[in-house]
Amino acid sequence: MHLRAIGRLHTPFRTLAECPRNGRKPDPPPSCEAEVFSEFVPGLRSLDGFSHLILLYWLDQVRVPELVFTPPFDDQPRGVFATRAPHRPNPIGLSVVAFDRFAAPGRLSVRYLDCIDGTALLDIKPYLPSVDAEPAASMGWLAAHATRRRTVEERQ
Amino acid sequence: MHLRAIGRLHTPFRTLAECPRNGRKPDPPPSCEAEVFSEFVPGLRSLDGFSHLILLYWLDQVRVPELVFTPPFDDQPRGVFATRAPHRPNPIGLSVVAFDRFAAPGRLSVRYLDCIDGTALLDIKPYLPSVDAEPAASMGWLAAHATRRRTVEERQ
Repeated sequence: MHLRAIGRLHTPFRTLAECPRNGRKPDPPPSCEAEVFSEFVPGLRSLDGFSHLILLYWLDQVRVPELVFTPPFDDQPRGVFATRAPHRPNPIGLSVVAFDRFAAPGRLSVRYLDCIDGTALLDIKPYLPSVDAEPAASMGWLAAHATRRRTVEERQ
Repeated sequence: MHLRAIGRLHTPFRTLAECPRNGRKPDPPPSCEAEVFSEFVPGLRSLDGFSHLILLYWLDQVRVPELVFTPPFDDQPRGVFATRAPHRPNPIGLSVVAFDRFAAPGRLSVRYLDCIDGTALLDIKPYLPSVDAEPAASMGWLAAHATRRRTVEERQ
């Protein structure tokens, strides 16, 4: 099972230390760009009209997976599959991003990325609320640490 | 960028032809199982309490990606990144599944899988509505083909 980069992500975060805990933490979120290499640009046809996308990318700073660890904001050891931490056996990052527009053919303006500038892009999927949205899902041990989203009223 | 299986998915679908268009199509959805190989079971610690998970898996029937194709239920060519079709440059499947219980240590009972029995499992992530839920997202050309979900009233 081999992967190849289909593009590259451009973010303002140059080091791991600069990366936010998730893409919703910075408020307001910075504008980022998903660059798709020219050979894959035909695959973007009909992407207009989707307000949100799922981006998969390769967390290349991970050297050794850690199956159990104590998160910095917690006091108990947790399994890596009960977290979104990067040091996973297969270090694939996932973000649900807002897709604002094509900055150019093959360059997507997006918000809510959390990864280092230059991260390899693996896949773009359209976000489908009919199968991907579970707003009432329960968050287990992470409920106490949830990133709060502004309400519609607060955003106005 | 190399991947390794952390487990295997057990579904009632033995061939591609038997797979539903997505995991929400079968109604009621069959109970499936995500088996995690023993060396990775410690990573499941603290997974109790999450009602939904994101599973990533390897679509190993894909031989050649198709960047542009006409979906069977549509009459226009679409880019693969504007679809959830399997024949992607990196054939990583993604399902948001309901996590019902541990059938045994390392065996998760889940619903809403759409893949062939025996598919290699790559990653398990907790579903976090705070960053993953966008119930009002617009679905572009797929809006006309959305899988309808039963309302709470209809489910009772």
